[in-house]
Amino acid sequence: MPDPRFYSAAGPFTLNELADISGAEITGGAGDGRVFTDVAPLETAGADTVSFLDNRKYAGAFSESLAGACFVHSEMAGRAPEGMALLISDEPYHAYARAAAAFYPPDMQTPGWESATGIDPSAKIGVGSDIAASAIVGPGAEIGDGVRIGGCSVIGPGVVVGAGSSIGASVTLSHCIIGERAIVHSGVRVGQDGFGFALGADGHLKVPQLGRVMIGDDVEIGANTTIDRGAAPDTVIGDGCKIDNLVQIGHNVRIGRNCIVVSQVGISGSTTIGDFVMLGGQAGIAGHVTIGDGARIAAKAGVIGDIEPGLTVGGIPARPQKEWLRSVAVVNRLMKQKG
Amino acid sequence: MPDPRFYSAAGPFTLNELADISGAEITGGAGDGRVFTDVAPLETAGADTVSFLDNRKYAGAFSESLAGACFVHSEMAGRAPEGMALLISDEPYHAYARAAAAFYPPDMQTPGWESATGIDPSAKIGVGSDIAASAIVGPGAEIGDGVRIGGCSVIGPGVVVGAGSSIGASVTLSHCIIGERAIVHSGVRVGQDGFGFALGADGHLKVPQLGRVMIGDDVEIGANTTIDRGAAPDTVIGDGCKIDNLVQIGHNVRIGRNCIVVSQVGISGSTTIGDFVMLGGQAGIAGHVTIGDGARIAAKAGVIGDIEPGLTVGGIPARPQKEWLRSVAVVNRLMKQKG
Amino acid sequence: MPDPRFYSAAGPFTLNELADISGAEITGGAGDGRVFTDVAPLETAGADTVSFLDNRKYAGAFSESLAGACFVHSEMAGRAPEGMALLISDEPYHAYARAAAAFYPPDMQTPGWESATGIDPSAKIGVGSDIAASAIVGPGAEIGDGVRIGGCSVIGPGVVVGAGSSIGASVTLSHCIIGERAIVHSGVRVGQDGFGFALGADGHLKVPQLGRVMIGDDVEIGANTTIDRGAAPDTVIGDGCKIDNLVQIGHNVRIGRNCIVVSQVGISGSTTIGDFVMLGGQAGIAGHVTIGDGARIAAKAGVIGDIEPGLTVGGIPARPQKEWLRSVAVVNRLMKQKG
Repeated sequence: MPDPRFYSAAGPFTLNELADISGAEITGGAGDGRVFTDVAPLETAGADTVSFLDNRKYAGAFSESLAGACFVHSEMAGRAPEGMALLISDEPYHAYARAAAAFYPPDMQTPGWESATGIDPSAKIGVGSDIAASAIVGPGAEIGDGVRIGGCSVIGPGVVVGAGSSIGASVTLSHCIIGERAIVHSGVRVGQDGFGFALGADGHLKVPQLGRVMIGDDVEIGANTTIDRGAAPDTVIGDGCKIDNLVQIGHNVRIGRNCIVVSQVGISGSTTIGDFVMLGGQAGIAGHVTIGDGARIAAKAGVIGDIEPGLTVGGIPARPQKEWLRSVAVVNRLMKQKG
Repeated sequence: MPDPRFYSAAGPFTLNELADISGAEITGGAGDGRVFTDVAPLETAGADTVSFLDNRKYAGAFSESLAGACFVHSEMAGRAPEGMALLISDEPYHAYARAAAAFYPPDMQTPGWESATGIDPSAKIGVGSDIAASAIVGPGAEIGDGVRIGGCSVIGPGVVVGAGSSIGASVTLSHCIIGERAIVHSGVRVGQDGFGFALGADGHLKVPQLGRVMIGDDVEIGANTTIDRGAAPDTVIGDGCKIDNLVQIGHNVRIGRNCIVVSQVGISGSTTIGDFVMLGGQAGIAGHVTIGDGARIAAKAGVIGDIEPGLTVGGIPARPQKEWLRSVAVVNRLMKQKG
Repeated sequence: MPDPRFYSAAGPFTLNELADISGAEITGGAGDGRVFTDVAPLETAGADTVSFLDNRKYAGAFSESLAGACFVHSEMAGRAPEGMALLISDEPYHAYARAAAAFYPPDMQTPGWESATGIDPSAKIGVGSDIAASAIVGPGAEIGDGVRIGGCSVIGPGVVVGAGSSIGASVTLSHCIIGERAIVHSGVRVGQDGFGFALGADGHLKVPQLGRVMIGDDVEIGANTTIDRGAAPDTVIGDGCKIDNLVQIGHNVRIGRNCIVVSQVGISGSTTIGDFVMLGGQAGIAGHVTIGDGARIAAKAGVIGDIEPGLTVGGIPARPQKEWLRSVAVVNRLMKQKG
């Protein structure tokens, strides 16, 4: 269930209502009176939540899911577990996106609380904290002891900032929990909704992003870096990570402890990175890959598959650094022979 | 003519005055009393505007131009249409830049209106809009119904934001017209003047940027992305485009409808992109190229020439994706043989 | 000595105190009553300052240093000049980082002065300047004549902005001296502390960054660009440089006059760039390299070594542009033969 500090669900909706909202068809033609209170991934959904199967790779999770209802393509309907209500659609991800948007109407980025200035009376502010007069702290936010917040920063509703952290000027924090002794430089954006769309020939449908950003202790985040919140799971940055300026971290990314992420790196959605990984400047990591503990990614490398622990890789596409350097040398030799 | 909501021209200037300002010489030695009220590109200039020819590629447009006067190199003077006054210079672009700066003195980025706070009395604010108390809305701006604007955002004079749009915190909008239902994430910069200089051995001369940014309906723009305004034509983002975080879009770029632009992409000035184009993360597109409808640019690709509609390209320089992957494989094979 | 406008040292500390703070051991076992008032690099340290030797490359500077004391590995102790007190450590850079942090406790990014709003009474504001009501100008800042500062910008204590400069909205300036007629676009971050850590298996130790950013006259800095301040020397941008949007410039970088730096370029720490150098979009420059006057770096190039004056380079790793283009052609030919 999305964190109630950041999200509150509309609904509940009956199966018939969900069919109307999403354009899907109920197997058997009509609902049976059951109501649904939320959306959830296949793995965590329960009897009163609705899920979706879009990628056949997850057919196993579908067959074992406890979801009360599921958006699914007719071809996969036969794999459904007993008792699951099916909402059949040629585009199950689109249908899910519409249903999710009904549960969670667009999370406007500038909710009414910003019409106020300064610190909302319902926010908790720790002892010895130093919050700029021009900063805005939203309702229900929890700011720890000794926290400093710079000028013109906007801390959204429910955000938690741990003790001893320092937040620069012009920072925007939303939908996030930040640990202790963090240093967040000026212009950082944490927690905006990720780049999630159901693509289509008539235009692209926004998919509600219902997760958070969880940032550990002793993390440093460089100026103008952007970290999107998770789609349903969270985006996670482990303890002790040091992230440089102008880095992009996509939704659902999980980074372990004590990683070094140099300037202008981009990490695509749903990628998992181990502990003590080093990412060189301007490196790019594709989505849905896993990088093992202690791996080192050279500057400007383009990682498109999993990387084993401890391996050093370079080049586009990234391969073991020695192979990459040898391949450059081979081409140079050839060029000089033929040139 | 530059949009009067954003620009008002000084002048008019006589030919003699323009010669003095620019350092150019009038053919025949002196002006004939004609006055000029504006600068304009060759194609759209009229009898009372002054234009320039810098790149010989545009000699045809020069010969057909209706411009009353034109900055031009002596070698090209013979190609001028009858009746056009010529301002001869060894560096016509520099001469033009000086004249344009006389018509449009440096558009300071923090005009006096910002000395005020909140919403300027001359701005029009739609019904049901929610504008943060710490936001600034300049004179003549038009904010549609149901628009939300986040904390510490600065909306410049004359800017238009369509109904139902959501503008995040710490956003800066100037010299732009934004459509309906746009989502502009925190830290976005739209409409600053583009990177336009007349280069020279004594230093580089700033060329006034007199266009706008025109953004369609249903566009999403990611956190800390930057979109420069046009130099004379506009920078244009079509309906339904989804642009990720930390993207750079240069002056005069034209993007069609429903494109997907992933994080950290850079699009150089005056490039044209069709509809439903997909640009992968960290891809870079050179200036003045054309990318056809439905083309797909792989992550980290470097596009240096036109791309046909529907083509998928990768690599630096970008070529058809299959060729690029084969060339990587060929080098790998060679490296393993020789290594 | 760090600029007193931006830094004030705690201390002084005795040798025994420095040993306690840093975990290093004093040669001979105990201090001799000398006290130390500051940290400094080997080259500029004097009798009352403490320095460090971490990289054997600098053993010569160590042998000639006038530093009163130095953190050093036991293996290098024999190279010390006479009279220098030695603080022996297996990790001299870590030991130095701890000592430097004692002299300069973490420079919080949002010091108490921000609790005020507007212009601090101790700031000097020039004639004819136009400072947005929502901007913040810290104590001791000096703003020249005719300077404009946009909405929600935060100008830190002691910052100097030269006459005729224009600072956009949502800009953050700290620890910097900016020349005349500069144009700093919205969202720029200048002077935050650089990405300096003593890496370790137990986590990474922050190294105090005690330099400044020095920006010349007639410099333009694009939207959302980030420029870190120096570690001990300064980060320097020469007169007439034009820097585009979303560029990253690391600590201690020195850029000469009239360089053109296109969007999304990244320049790593301690790199030196000559005059009239052109850096194409998304190029990346490694740390500690030197690029000669008039060199041209192609878009997306990855520079990993020194570049001679006047040379044009491209590719990753960067080599002379003609060689790079030939190597692409050779691979293409090979691919077509074998494909």
